[in-house]
Amino acid sequence: MTDQAPTDLAPTAPAPRRIWRNARLATMRADRPGLGIVERGAIVADHGLIAYAGPEADLPSDLVRGGEIIDCDGRWITPGLIDCHTHLVHGGDRANEFELRLKGASYEEIARAGGGIVSSVAATRAASEDELVRQTLPRLDALIAEGVTTVEIKSGYGLDTASELKSLRAARALEKVRDVAIATTFLGAHALPPEAQGDKAAYIDLIVRDMLPAVAAEWLADAVDGFCEGIAFSPDEIARVFDAAKGFGLPVKLHADQLSNLGGAALAARYGALSADHLEHTDEAGAAAMAAAGTVAVILPGAFYFIRETKRPPIELFRAHGVPMAVATDCNPGTSPLTSLLLTMNMAATLFRMTVEECLLGVTREAARALGRLGEIGTIEPGKACDLAIWDIERPAELVYRMGFNPLHARIRRGR
Amino acid sequence: MTDQAPTDLAPTAPAPRRIWRNARLATMRADRPGLGIVERGAIVADHGLIAYAGPEADLPSDLVRGGEIIDCDGRWITPGLIDCHTHLVHGGDRANEFELRLKGASYEEIARAGGGIVSSVAATRAASEDELVRQTLPRLDALIAEGVTTVEIKSGYGLDTASELKSLRAARALEKVRDVAIATTFLGAHALPPEAQGDKAAYIDLIVRDMLPAVAAEWLADAVDGFCEGIAFSPDEIARVFDAAKGFGLPVKLHADQLSNLGGAALAARYGALSADHLEHTDEAGAAAMAAAGTVAVILPGAFYFIRETKRPPIELFRAHGVPMAVATDCNPGTSPLTSLLLTMNMAATLFRMTVEECLLGVTREAARALGRLGEIGTIEPGKACDLAIWDIERPAELVYRMGFNPLHARIRRGR
Ligand SMILES: [Zn+2]
Ligand SMILES: [Zn+2]
Repeated sequence: MTDQAPTDLAPTAPAPRRIWRNARLATMRADRPGLGIVERGAIVADHGLIAYAGPEADLPSDLVRGGEIIDCDGRWITPGLIDCHTHLVHGGDRANEFELRLKGASYEEIARAGGGIVSSVAATRAASEDELVRQTLPRLDALIAEGVTTVEIKSGYGLDTASELKSLRAARALEKVRDVAIATTFLGAHALPPEAQGDKAAYIDLIVRDMLPAVAAEWLADAVDGFCEGIAFSPDEIARVFDAAKGFGLPVKLHADQLSNLGGAALAARYGALSADHLEHTDEAGAAAMAAAGTVAVILPGAFYFIRETKRPPIELFRAHGVPMAVATDCNPGTSPLTSLLLTMNMAATLFRMTVEECLLGVTREAARALGRLGEIGTIEPGKACDLAIWDIERPAELVYRMGFNPLHARIRRGR
Repeated sequence: MTDQAPTDLAPTAPAPRRIWRNARLATMRADRPGLGIVERGAIVADHGLIAYAGPEADLPSDLVRGGEIIDCDGRWITPGLIDCHTHLVHGGDRANEFELRLKGASYEEIARAGGGIVSSVAATRAASEDELVRQTLPRLDALIAEGVTTVEIKSGYGLDTASELKSLRAARALEKVRDVAIATTFLGAHALPPEAQGDKAAYIDLIVRDMLPAVAAEWLADAVDGFCEGIAFSPDEIARVFDAAKGFGLPVKLHADQLSNLGGAALAARYGALSADHLEHTDEAGAAAMAAAGTVAVILPGAFYFIRETKRPPIELFRAHGVPMAVATDCNPGTSPLTSLLLTMNMAATLFRMTVEECLLGVTREAARALGRLGEIGTIEPGKACDLAIWDIERPAELVYRMGFNPLHARIRRGR
């Protein structure tokens, strides 16, 4: 259903000049209401950047000259979609565990059958960097096929220095084999590895003294993340990781308040985090702190659905306090084996009653904000990268309304 | 991700002889336990029918001679998938209504904005047969892209004789432009059209005296369906439709017990219905009656999810009584805009705790049973149509476990 087969795309130089005309634009610009719609719009790309985006009637003639003109037949154009929270790089899958659970197997039985996060850690450690790339590509291609142009990818299934570095290198390597931007996040504080034998303090030492310096030395991470939860790490342990990240000048984000309220949202805000993610149990103080810090709430309905959570994130509180909201797949083998950002929007609307506008802004402008990249991507406006998705739809709401349907007509990356 | 682009397929003559070897088969045969797995399997197709399916070691040499041999590299093969309950043919969509509802619009406001089933009826009536085909094709192609080879399609958005006939003709016409089998179902008793002004008895008269004879005269329906519910038709009204269907020798099926328990399951069983569908509110007597009648329970998790139902169908009762269970998309614009049978299986597992085996049998063998076509399709065994799906997976559970991911390698229809 796409003009170009995304899986065949290798990274290419940006196109010199192209003009999309006869289009309806959902620019997502923050200085316009709603989706920033331009009904009879045109976009000019010059060497991969947007040179003009607005009414076709106002198109400056000097910008058109010498360009390739594409008639969009009235189709809708949005920014290329952004999946701002994934664990896309990991070894193996957990289909076996899923099957056993449905048969009524207990956690012990699943553990004995080799299930749980330990199995993903073992498979990730056993795979080479190339093998991790190879296993990740089908998942990445599924996202790309829906118009995704930027994907955040976390480490966190290696849990030793070599395996965390390998995972982040694999994530970076994906940019070389697909025409997509990858934002990497170091998530050493995801879970305690089996060899730590319950000693969280010693493992945090390892992160702070060994992993993080190595990650920073290779410029392998664009941000640092942690999992603040009873089953993972305490606020104090996360604070040690965040302090170390600040020392390397790396921005932070946090898996916060997913299963209980440990004050993760407020902790993230205190560190000026780019985002706090999940947030099912966040309270009003947490929401207020996030608003004050400009921390984005990343809403992850796939995990909520898959693990059959019942407590919904406080969308009304985020609205009331003006917390920006992004939406992401959280693609991971244990709690969200989800590779469709379109379906994720439907889940955010259906399960959390987010509006169509909130969902669409959540996978474009607000997702860019959650990555600290709002200056370069996430909206259609001059100076930003010309990353676009062109859709065979009559209205933007269709992108949220349907389930298991991909109306992508074409995906444009850096003007090509 | 498929070897052949399904949307380019036009119906073709069956291939003379082809052999798939080095494959893992999930035959779904009823005389084998579970999924009827053959680990080192082969399949021979002869003029579109399966001539052999079993261990490669036992492949009769005379069946191989002169055939085209395809090495499957150890891939899994299932029967082509069957979506046994859809409303795929309809005009327009309800994305606007979806968007309004999320903004908090009341039912009255939505009705004033032209929403509700009335809007689908108006759009269906306004469209020509060709236009209905054109609007349906993207939805059908989405199913086909996931290895679906048989699709049931109901009328029920026309609600007058001409529009119901037009809808069924459009459904039949799809077989001419895509290589897929369509099973048609007349669903005049879906809703009361606006011009009936509340007079259900008179509308049932119209169905029985006018619509059904016209449908039968043109052989336009393979079965007759109704919607038995407080907001639709009573058991007595449905019984009149079923009696008339029996008079034309047409099998029946029923939308039963979705929102309340009017005894729809038992009514369906009393008429020896092929299936009763939805069944959220079915009680033990209904399940027992279905088991005795051999009526299939068609489970529709998409609608449950989309309208945020909380009452789950009594899967345990169906298991206990031995009621066969199928799983289907219920693709329709109002309550289940769902065009992925893979995602539907995930929903049946996640939301209703159906097992991987139940889900996979539910879109193959039991779906064939729900269409009265178990003699021709639904399992991989000699004499049946060679409709297959070949998958890039390590184990069948992956087809249920993932969300928004399509691992189809190739789709075979009638051996081609
Ligand atoms: Zn996560
Ligand atoms: Zn239905």
